[in-house]
Amino acid sequence: MNSASGGGDSNPGDFQPTERTRIKRLHQRAVYDRAGVYAILDAGLVCHVGYVIDGQPFVTPTAYWRDGDRVYWHGSSASRMLRHLGRGAPVCFTVSMLDGLVLARSGFHSSINYRSVIAYGKARLVEGEAEKLAALEAFSERLTPGRWARLRPPTEQELKATTMVSLDLKEVAAKVRTGPPADDEQDYDLDVWAGVVPVTCVTGPPEDDSRLKPGVERPAYLNNMVVG
Amino acid sequence: MNSASGGGDSNPGDFQPTERTRIKRLHQRAVYDRAGVYAILDAGLVCHVGYVIDGQPFVTPTAYWRDGDRVYWHGSSASRMLRHLGRGAPVCFTVSMLDGLVLARSGFHSSINYRSVIAYGKARLVEGEAEKLAALEAFSERLTPGRWARLRPPTEQELKATTMVSLDLKEVAAKVRTGPPADDEQDYDLDVWAGVVPVTCVTGPPEDDSRLKPGVERPAYLNNMVVG
Repeated sequence: MNSASGGGDSNPGDFQPTERTRIKRLHQRAVYDRAGVYAILDAGLVCHVGYVIDGQPFVTPTAYWRDGDRVYWHGSSASRMLRHLGRGAPVCFTVSMLDGLVLARSGFHSSINYRSVIAYGKARLVEGEAEKLAALEAFSERLTPGRWARLRPPTEQELKATTMVSLDLKEVAAKVRTGPPADDEQDYDLDVWAGVVPVTCVTGPPEDDSRLKPGVERPAYLNNMVVG
Repeated sequence: MNSASGGGDSNPGDFQPTERTRIKRLHQRAVYDRAGVYAILDAGLVCHVGYVIDGQPFVTPTAYWRDGDRVYWHGSSASRMLRHLGRGAPVCFTVSMLDGLVLARSGFHSSINYRSVIAYGKARLVEGEAEKLAALEAFSERLTPGRWARLRPPTEQELKATTMVSLDLKEVAAKVRTGPPADDEQDYDLDVWAGVVPVTCVTGPPEDDSRLKPGVERPAYLNNMVVG
């Protein structure tokens, strides 16, 4: 990840830091290359959407997915967040995943390992039924490949009750910390354990619905889900 | 969790819903009782802090901890977020944890299981050195009980370089979804797997720092960490 630091080896498609996305402190943690950013986005499932109403900040957690150079999220058409963003309000889209606890020999140098992405812009209301359906399918296939074709398809009423927005990935930066603690030189002599405790998000054994139709088997995708 | 729904069985210390914190849709998922909210906060480690500068929303992920009726977070004194909040700007403090994928027989009824807390207010700059030290100790002890006393204590310069804020837990609501999918009656007849795939955040085997002093053993708390 550090090879992308400070924009050293940039490709034509990479993100250009703006005033808002330039990582000013600890810039060795910055990631602007598109592949690095997309890899983080594709590993996550829940984002935190920031928006402003009457000067008050709101942060709503919700599921998201990426399709090409956009991220999507959706919810009830009655959602305050979606109604507000659908009118073109500025948004801050944040994804973060905890990867480890970094236990240094002082509190000051203790830290966490993580991957995070922040994107700014204005969300766009997805209005066409075809785009909505394609995006819902992409969301389903990202987690459970092959499942969409077996589900009962969405009804017209369900599509109407679902509001969906997308955000073009234009003003984007990621920040990543990996590796061991970096202690002050004189602290390495202390008799205290130091190192990293890795943290992972894992899926457990699937729980069959109590009304599962007899004979229906567990699909293979249940064992291969990436959720962080 | 549902026993706390809609403020049915409330205690004197419970949170009173305001215009901002009243859960309007799916109100059976609402949690306003203090013990229920604190249990969620105490399980989490990373929050998402929302704030506004010149009308633009920002959402910053950072570690937090609870001490009594307050949550705390901290960082570099050069942090834009902390400098802004230290001046009394309104904040939205959000914690969310993913607990499972709810795979229904239609896309529409598919969902996620989760715990989330949202608190509104104005953060307060922690200025006294004694409160700062006590709060840092509480943070360390929450994750790694017994460790603080063995660390090299913070220097005056480190304390100066650390800005800390707290938020009083006054305007707070939590939202929780648990349990299986709730399908449309006629969909239960479909030949598709349905149920829940649990998601958990786990800590892996600790990784010793390469410069660990010989003879230093791994403390027991490394095996008992709750990070989500």
